[in-house]
Amino acid sequence: MNTAELIRKKRNNEHLTKEEILFLVNGFTKNKIPDYQFSAFLMSVYFNGMSKEETSALTEAMLYSGKVLDLSSIKGIKIDKHSTGGVGDKTSLILAPIAAAAGVKVPMISGRGLGHSGGTLDKLESIPGFRTDLTLTEYKNVLKKTGAVLIGQTKEIAPADKSIYALRDVTATVESIPLITGSIMSKKLAEGIDGLVLDVKTGSGAFMQKEKDAVALANSLIDTAKAFNKKVIGFVTDMNQPLGNYIGNWLEVYESIQVLKDGKKNDLTELSLILAGAMIYLGKKAKSLDEGIETAIKILSSGKAFDKFAEIVKAQNGKTDFVIRPEKYPEPKIKEAVKSVSTGYLSEINTYELGMAAIDLGAGRKTKDDKIDPKAGIIFNYKIGDTINKNVVLAEIFSDSKTGVESAKKRIESAVKISKSKPGKPKLIKKVFI
Amino acid sequence: MNTAELIRKKRNNEHLTKEEILFLVNGFTKNKIPDYQFSAFLMSVYFNGMSKEETSALTEAMLYSGKVLDLSSIKGIKIDKHSTGGVGDKTSLILAPIAAAAGVKVPMISGRGLGHSGGTLDKLESIPGFRTDLTLTEYKNVLKKTGAVLIGQTKEIAPADKSIYALRDVTATVESIPLITGSIMSKKLAEGIDGLVLDVKTGSGAFMQKEKDAVALANSLIDTAKAFNKKVIGFVTDMNQPLGNYIGNWLEVYESIQVLKDGKKNDLTELSLILAGAMIYLGKKAKSLDEGIETAIKILSSGKAFDKFAEIVKAQNGKTDFVIRPEKYPEPKIKEAVKSVSTGYLSEINTYELGMAAIDLGAGRKTKDDKIDPKAGIIFNYKIGDTINKNVVLAEIFSDSKTGVESAKKRIESAVKISKSKPGKPKLIKKVFI
Repeated sequence: MNTAELIRKKRNNEHLTKEEILFLVNGFTKNKIPDYQFSAFLMSVYFNGMSKEETSALTEAMLYSGKVLDLSSIKGIKIDKHSTGGVGDKTSLILAPIAAAAGVKVPMISGRGLGHSGGTLDKLESIPGFRTDLTLTEYKNVLKKTGAVLIGQTKEIAPADKSIYALRDVTATVESIPLITGSIMSKKLAEGIDGLVLDVKTGSGAFMQKEKDAVALANSLIDTAKAFNKKVIGFVTDMNQPLGNYIGNWLEVYESIQVLKDGKKNDLTELSLILAGAMIYLGKKAKSLDEGIETAIKILSSGKAFDKFAEIVKAQNGKTDFVIRPEKYPEPKIKEAVKSVSTGYLSEINTYELGMAAIDLGAGRKTKDDKIDPKAGIIFNYKIGDTINKNVVLAEIFSDSKTGVESAKKRIESAVKISKSKPGKPKLIKKVFI
Repeated sequence: MNTAELIRKKRNNEHLTKEEILFLVNGFTKNKIPDYQFSAFLMSVYFNGMSKEETSALTEAMLYSGKVLDLSSIKGIKIDKHSTGGVGDKTSLILAPIAAAAGVKVPMISGRGLGHSGGTLDKLESIPGFRTDLTLTEYKNVLKKTGAVLIGQTKEIAPADKSIYALRDVTATVESIPLITGSIMSKKLAEGIDGLVLDVKTGSGAFMQKEKDAVALANSLIDTAKAFNKKVIGFVTDMNQPLGNYIGNWLEVYESIQVLKDGKKNDLTELSLILAGAMIYLGKKAKSLDEGIETAIKILSSGKAFDKFAEIVKAQNGKTDFVIRPEKYPEPKIKEAVKSVSTGYLSEINTYELGMAAIDLGAGRKTKDDKIDPKAGIIFNYKIGDTINKNVVLAEIFSDSKTGVESAKKRIESAVKISKSKPGKPKLIKKVFI
């Protein structure tokens, strides 16, 4: 096969065969196709997209660039959840113990913070001792023992994704639905799962700000999961405001504990229960999605999910002291308040800016080598539609360093729009694909 | 400036500034921007095109990557002609001596065969001794002495074009009007010309097969020439059949001599006179295009153009014996005939295939290092609209080697369509931009 001819085919919007896509991905991964040809190919995909079949072939080629885990020795149906990321999105910490307590096996390979959005690994690592770098053997052992495990990507998993992502990042080819699909699904399919619940975010704090793009991505992810005979339920959910009230690594663990242990109820709780319900249904521990959600609610209120969370933390070497008494967690050096300058209704939030404010405070990385401050972050006290009086505390900010405080405050102030007329509340669940 | 951000801008169809384009071209040429980023940029340009201003900025950046010749020490107005290439297109060999004999200075930096089309340098080198590798000092001296000079691109001229073209060739980004414009115009502007006549070919033997693409390219080339304050006349001309009857290096020199010396009249003569007339007009040796053409006709019939051709050949070290007595040129080992299998009208020619047939015979290169057989080629005896009887000799083929003969014959046979109804003759000059 001739690489330039294959680039030309995609450029001319012709269909590439499975063999041709395999040739391109393998060639690039094995350094037989130079990066300057692969980047031209990626840009052609950006412009012309890929069919279902092409996207599946891309995913398959990326998947088999590495190890595909075999979890058949572990009893039970293995279901994972994937979120496309947002601000304050900590549902994994809540739904994994709920689903595991319901008897579903939850093998999760998660990511770190990316851009303005947080990452499950960074959150978990705010618990002293928590290890996300388990070997694949340890991964299996924890999953077998506790029913859930949360680790980071290993070198064995979809190495093609790592090289392709690095190239996409510097060639402006990140925002492509088939390329995003290949990246997500190759990693998820490598986990050895039987089914997947997808949470595709849309709104001011999401990567797919427009709902139609989120729907297109959801469809592409679902089609690909089905092409690999995986059970799948997809949701398009709101990210026009932070999920819950806490943003930042330890703060998000803390809020998850409030939900798991103290029955805190908000949009975070609601979404976590729905997603956990979908996992329970896919894991055949309920006969319908609604029954799955009912089961999730019962498990949460019984305290079993909190116990499961503590069990997982312990199995992954984390200190459970702070899980049991989160109020004992060390205090950040700086605590400040951002107050409202007017009276009215909270009508709009630039959630992306709230995410960036948390990063200014130290909750995320601006460059690859930045160290994260686990205590840094924001508690944002209101939701869209709430009445706001002048001088109330809109947000509290936390950090160990003064460096980003002023910039974070400014971002928060500019991110919030207070209006005289009462706005509608955004709908949490925008679409369900079942 | 951030390269990935600039790629993103072009990808999003936003306008790049002159400084941004200079940053990209210089960065790539000086190995500061990696080829994988530049190829993604090229593919974005393929999809989104470039504005007039962007195309001029690209051309300028490529032009000033090398030396821009200063011909101000040579008296007279310097006018060149550029053709986008086709099959049997040998007008340079005829119009350069005509224009020079009219007092216009003709500094020509020409190319070699590319794909199915021949190159002026390869044609001239079929004349024993003819040197196309003059130094820039020799180039100026020949131009001063004879009024015309025809050489190949030197390393000093637009080196950015060489690196960019090599990358375009392997990343399916050749067929882009702004990139073609930058490539052509950066080299032409480096010659030190005052004006340029453009011959943009369209039809089955052209790179721009569709007339609308040829018109778009003509407009882009003209806009760019004007942006650099160059006088310019553009033509879109027919390439649905070979120009003249001879295809192949020596064969094309031979046919040019027939036009220059013996007054042979055909579409080649007609087009050469029009293009030479435009050069004479731009060179201020005539008050209008029509008067320029009149002058060209007079010079051709006077024999002065032939004398000038012999003078140029001599000045560039070529043996004039074969120019004066072309019938003395060595005979090829193989001469065969391709005959018509039916009776009717010649209605269509796949001219690309005729070009490829000539290459099969040895008239061009299939790989970079192939040696050219100067005697190889085709005499195609008919024009579209001609009556063809069964068994007449449609084409004669010539080669020193048997290797490509069968393949060439098949190509010629399949390239020709003979129909019962009389077709219209293609119009030679499709558009004039003056």
